[in-house]
Amino acid sequence: MSAKDELVGELTPDFEKGAGLVTVVTQDHTDGTVLMVAYMNREAWEQTLATGLATYWSRSRSELWVKGQTSGKVQNVCEIRLDCDLDCVLLRVEQVGEAACHTGRRSCFYRVRGDHGFVIDSEPVFDAAQVYGR
Amino acid sequence: MSAKDELVGELTPDFEKGAGLVTVVTQDHTDGTVLMVAYMNREAWEQTLATGLATYWSRSRSELWVKGQTSGKVQNVCEIRLDCDLDCVLLRVEQVGEAACHTGRRSCFYRVRGDHGFVIDSEPVFDAAQVYGR
Repeated sequence: MSAKDELVGELTPDFEKGAGLVTVVTQDHTDGTVLMVAYMNREAWEQTLATGLATYWSRSRSELWVKGQTSGKVQNVCEIRLDCDLDCVLLRVEQVGEAACHTGRRSCFYRVRGDHGFVIDSEPVFDAAQVYGR
Repeated sequence: MSAKDELVGELTPDFEKGAGLVTVVTQDHTDGTVLMVAYMNREAWEQTLATGLATYWSRSRSELWVKGQTSGKVQNVCEIRLDCDLDCVLLRVEQVGEAACHTGRRSCFYRVRGDHGFVIDSEPVFDAAQVYGR
């Protein structure tokens, strides 16, 4: 059994298990708010380590995705964690421009379930149409 | 654009996008620590809503998985959120018995990257061998 503070050395996520991709959960480093969930392939992982900027693999566009490349709202990586079976990455980031969601909201998880269904509990902090030009 | 506090009514995750499964991020409700990442199919989602106990789909065992069924360390669901494109669920839970990870640690994300590779930064809070009988 591995003990606390044991150095386990450099580790690489298990990309093979998920057909080349691992799931990434991204939290705001200041208060732990989950901002988004995305995916990384090996190249995105290596580029994140090399640059310190959260870099994902866009499944819809099938391309490497430096978060904030279009909007300027990049994510500076403060902490990187791997889970017990190495198929999931947890990032704590400094979210430049506050908002991570393409709708302009801080977090993608802006719908919360109440007694009468889901409620939207946050407003956009930027105008997505203006930033993305659509 | 949907406004803050707008009631959007009952929503169901988009299970079709991920071949019947959606990703679930589970946070401790007290401090936002990400405890684990798992998956739900429609049955797991509906059972979670009906029982208030976090219920997942085990991909390795191909069966419905009431978290804590074996160990007694269930997760009482305090809050349910859905993300912008409805393919990811965020739960805030009360983790009975403190630990969510099968290694006996509070969180599955116990490996943190430092200057010389990854370090294990938490100790088991229960003896996994004793609890799971292996």
